[in-house]
Amino acid sequence: MTGWVVIAGLGPGAAAMVTPEVTAALADATDIVGYIPYVARVAPRPGLTLHATDNRVELDRATHALQMAQSGQRVVVVSSGDPGVFAMASAIFEAVEAAPEFVDVDIRVLPGITAMLAAASAIGAPLGHDFCAINLSDNLKPWSLIERRLRLAAQADLAMAFYNPRSASRPDTFTHVLHTLRQECEPTRLISFARAVSTPDQQIITVTLAEAQPEMADMRTVVILGNSATRRVGRHVYTPRSVG
Amino acid sequence: MTGWVVIAGLGPGAAAMVTPEVTAALADATDIVGYIPYVARVAPRPGLTLHATDNRVELDRATHALQMAQSGQRVVVVSSGDPGVFAMASAIFEAVEAAPEFVDVDIRVLPGITAMLAAASAIGAPLGHDFCAINLSDNLKPWSLIERRLRLAAQADLAMAFYNPRSASRPDTFTHVLHTLRQECEPTRLISFARAVSTPDQQIITVTLAEAQPEMADMRTVVILGNSATRRVGRHVYTPRSVG
Repeated sequence: MTGWVVIAGLGPGAAAMVTPEVTAALADATDIVGYIPYVARVAPRPGLTLHATDNRVELDRATHALQMAQSGQRVVVVSSGDPGVFAMASAIFEAVEAAPEFVDVDIRVLPGITAMLAAASAIGAPLGHDFCAINLSDNLKPWSLIERRLRLAAQADLAMAFYNPRSASRPDTFTHVLHTLRQECEPTRLISFARAVSTPDQQIITVTLAEAQPEMADMRTVVILGNSATRRVGRHVYTPRSVG
Repeated sequence: MTGWVVIAGLGPGAAAMVTPEVTAALADATDIVGYIPYVARVAPRPGLTLHATDNRVELDRATHALQMAQSGQRVVVVSSGDPGVFAMASAIFEAVEAAPEFVDVDIRVLPGITAMLAAASAIGAPLGHDFCAINLSDNLKPWSLIERRLRLAAQADLAMAFYNPRSASRPDTFTHVLHTLRQECEPTRLISFARAVSTPDQQIITVTLAEAQPEMADMRTVVILGNSATRRVGRHVYTPRSVG
């Protein structure tokens, strides 16, 4: 029997945003691997083993998934959102690079609705023109690099989506982010905080950059800063397709 | 009867990448509005009117959708990929802004798998670290702005996804893009061309920036340039989560 690893995106939370190909992969799996709250989104059934692990053990989890596939198991590694955006796909490839015996494992990546797309849809169309996505977790990169990227992205007048804006272990990062953005952007720039998007807890707040407070973001929030043309129309916020 | 407009993303092409909430909206619609090849992806049925129009008439199409909703019809405006990424959502909000009588129309946006996410999944995980998305169509912005964004994004060491890299009406834009990128990035930087992703015609080519040719892109291609750490592992290309 030939095993495989599928790295699948479960989308931001709503079952109605899980793609049929991800649902089919889950139905065909023998093993599900992932962070506890994401594995909890997969229904148990006979013949399926759920391997839920804590955060911060991505490489161990990736190695375990690859080992099981080598033993003939059909393994789905689940991520929230899209697995290729600040999630498990890169961790799997890092594990393959570190242990070349895995290079022949059958690995496929199945895309999902990443948080910024679901958030943008709930807000209106703030990513309707050129934009960037920046992970504000400084576990994996120094603050100096985050700051440099913020300044250059602002100078390029890109809209920006921020993942992992704030956590208990680094409460000050997002304060520094707002401070940096206020140096680069006008105070009336619109910024939206989308929390628990697509779930029953969903909350969307849009304010100006001058009004933004660090406490508006938490671990479940994706933050979208508009570009210089982003504006309100009715109850929506959107960025026009053209410039000027 | 209360009408509505749903702006829905059909994903990059495969039926297995259409989310259940989009499928449900299509099933509930009285009218489908969109560009000819996207409307062609919706199955005809009694009670459903298909309004397929040519490209370049986005504002007329948006106004028509809003008018039908005001008359009580249930209208789905279809986009390829995600409707909020270089697609119809911004056009609908532009039409509302231009004609305030539409401000009370019930408008919802349903996200989809945008081309760069499907392309990245097929390539490996080239967007696993910070990245940007740039529309290379210069119908809606001057080349000088595109060039400025390319240079700043390269200086920020962002991976880059390029939409609409090349069309018959502007065959030279992508030549200028490659020229600009070669001035900013090392010649060994990896660049992937993902054509007709998720369809039977899918083709993925990864080369170095030095080897890239304008003809590798066409209207159906999304192009992904790695950051300075992007590399091959086995048959995949990925960007590590951490820096250095």
